[in-house]
Amino acid sequence: MFAVGIDIGGMSIKIGLVDDCGKIIAQSYFKTENTPCEMIKLMAEHISILINDNSLETKDLIGIGIGCPGSVNVDTGMIEILPNIFGWVKIPIVSKLKKYYDVPIKISNDANVAVLAESLYGAAKNYDNAIMFTLGTGVGGGIILDKKLVEGGHSLGAELGHTTLILEGEECTCGRKGCIERYVSATALIEQTKRAMLSDKNSTMWDFVGGNIDKVDGKTAFESAKKGDLTAKNVCDKYIYYLGESILNMLNIFRPDVFILGGGISAQGKFLTDKLQDYCERFEYGYKMSTRTKIVTAILGNDAGIIGAAALVRQ
Amino acid sequence: MFAVGIDIGGMSIKIGLVDDCGKIIAQSYFKTENTPCEMIKLMAEHISILINDNSLETKDLIGIGIGCPGSVNVDTGMIEILPNIFGWVKIPIVSKLKKYYDVPIKISNDANVAVLAESLYGAAKNYDNAIMFTLGTGVGGGIILDKKLVEGGHSLGAELGHTTLILEGEECTCGRKGCIERYVSATALIEQTKRAMLSDKNSTMWDFVGGNIDKVDGKTAFESAKKGDLTAKNVCDKYIYYLGESILNMLNIFRPDVFILGGGISAQGKFLTDKLQDYCERFEYGYKMSTRTKIVTAILGNDAGIIGAAALVRQ
Repeated sequence: MFAVGIDIGGMSIKIGLVDDCGKIIAQSYFKTENTPCEMIKLMAEHISILINDNSLETKDLIGIGIGCPGSVNVDTGMIEILPNIFGWVKIPIVSKLKKYYDVPIKISNDANVAVLAESLYGAAKNYDNAIMFTLGTGVGGGIILDKKLVEGGHSLGAELGHTTLILEGEECTCGRKGCIERYVSATALIEQTKRAMLSDKNSTMWDFVGGNIDKVDGKTAFESAKKGDLTAKNVCDKYIYYLGESILNMLNIFRPDVFILGGGISAQGKFLTDKLQDYCERFEYGYKMSTRTKIVTAILGNDAGIIGAAALVRQ
Repeated sequence: MFAVGIDIGGMSIKIGLVDDCGKIIAQSYFKTENTPCEMIKLMAEHISILINDNSLETKDLIGIGIGCPGSVNVDTGMIEILPNIFGWVKIPIVSKLKKYYDVPIKISNDANVAVLAESLYGAAKNYDNAIMFTLGTGVGGGIILDKKLVEGGHSLGAELGHTTLILEGEECTCGRKGCIERYVSATALIEQTKRAMLSDKNSTMWDFVGGNIDKVDGKTAFESAKKGDLTAKNVCDKYIYYLGESILNMLNIFRPDVFILGGGISAQGKFLTDKLQDYCERFEYGYKMSTRTKIVTAILGNDAGIIGAAALVRQ
């Protein structure tokens, strides 16, 4: 049996046919434009083409899963809001898509979908318990306990990025101040990098971006630090400290087998995880008594969206 | 069938016979003194007396549960350390007690046991998902999801008090700085109260403690605030702010049906929970879309230790 995974993103909507080993056997996409109703119709059309092209029928589908970059209500099958995509407010996507395909349809947010994919087929496939941060524009959170996705009541929990790192710290989009997201997201790292560059006009980070501060991204500080730039190294050390403390909070709550880092910054690989592993082992609560949590990076990359969405209907 | 619940405390060890409705039908206790081995023997003797006095036999016992004020390893049945009771380091309590009673024996820490009791028979009995802070010397944490106790890997998680409220804030016993525990435990409230009193020699809090600052306890600020003392009110407002922010972190992670406050400070009841409810509803992530978490106080009081311990063997 096959499952369809739909990954709604700000730029494109990706649709894949996933087998029961978590392998994408076919996929397509269309641009994120038009109204939600038109896009849902397009999703159905793409599913239809994928099924036909692979000589399948609707009865071969176990169901359709959808990962959404925003708040969803799992109970009602409603997308509450996708903050970065115009028009997606209070859209009953499950019932609308069901008019085209009368199969089980489930939704979840994109961070939940990512950790589910990594848990079943990726970085945590050999472990029962995993926690994940997706370090992007914000910080998405995912929780897997006993191989099951934990979304919190009404599927509105697992907002790990919206817990406090520094009370009364930087203002967060959620209305509070000092959330983890404001210190360890890619957005935050870029801000931290820019501030450091403005305070040191001789930093080689300026060369890295061709003198244009608008070109700073999540790699600028890390790549310059690796080449010996001291200001860049200070940015990285501070960022890793923030991230280490944020991860420690989750270890003390969940004591998972693995902690997974996803998003663009996770491309730093062991340069990042070795330092984090060392930091967390020094400060994890009562660590001397326990098997340590392994800190790893995600391995499914952009495919996690489709694979994890498809896995929702296999839970 | 009956279960035995054992509540190990710094002053006494309480032992109760609990029926399958969570009711304590008989209990006894002895003082916390002597060596762990002698105390385990005493536990067995007290169980024997309770069984005989109630015309029961060992075959009427479903098992024995033990709540411990410290770190335990559920997998090995070992008490790792009880920081406040001399001599309890690396004690294989389950295997030792099993020599006297060959029934299923389970252990957990006291905060886990308390939330289990409240979940099954107390403040959260009508709900599936509950999170609890036990506000005492430290801050214990308890997690119930789908009516099941979540202890984290190797049962060393759920240390909700050891997550950050203020990075680089006050030093915590766990080796980090700025943990929730350092701001919302009874110990922290007492420190905050004393500091405020020393800065205001005219505060009526001085009368409340008969001029002796060593008599300050978790009630001093609250009771003086209710009588109109402004300095006391400021202490309470700040404490409630710290507690509100700490609770919000857990709501954003778990979005439970209820959040339970236990420990002596919970005696403040609605004076405390009404303000916290209001604060959390204003700042809970995406709250507009969801049923709100109810913030309540524990109702089983000191019995939660025996009742929850006994419930461990019914999980």
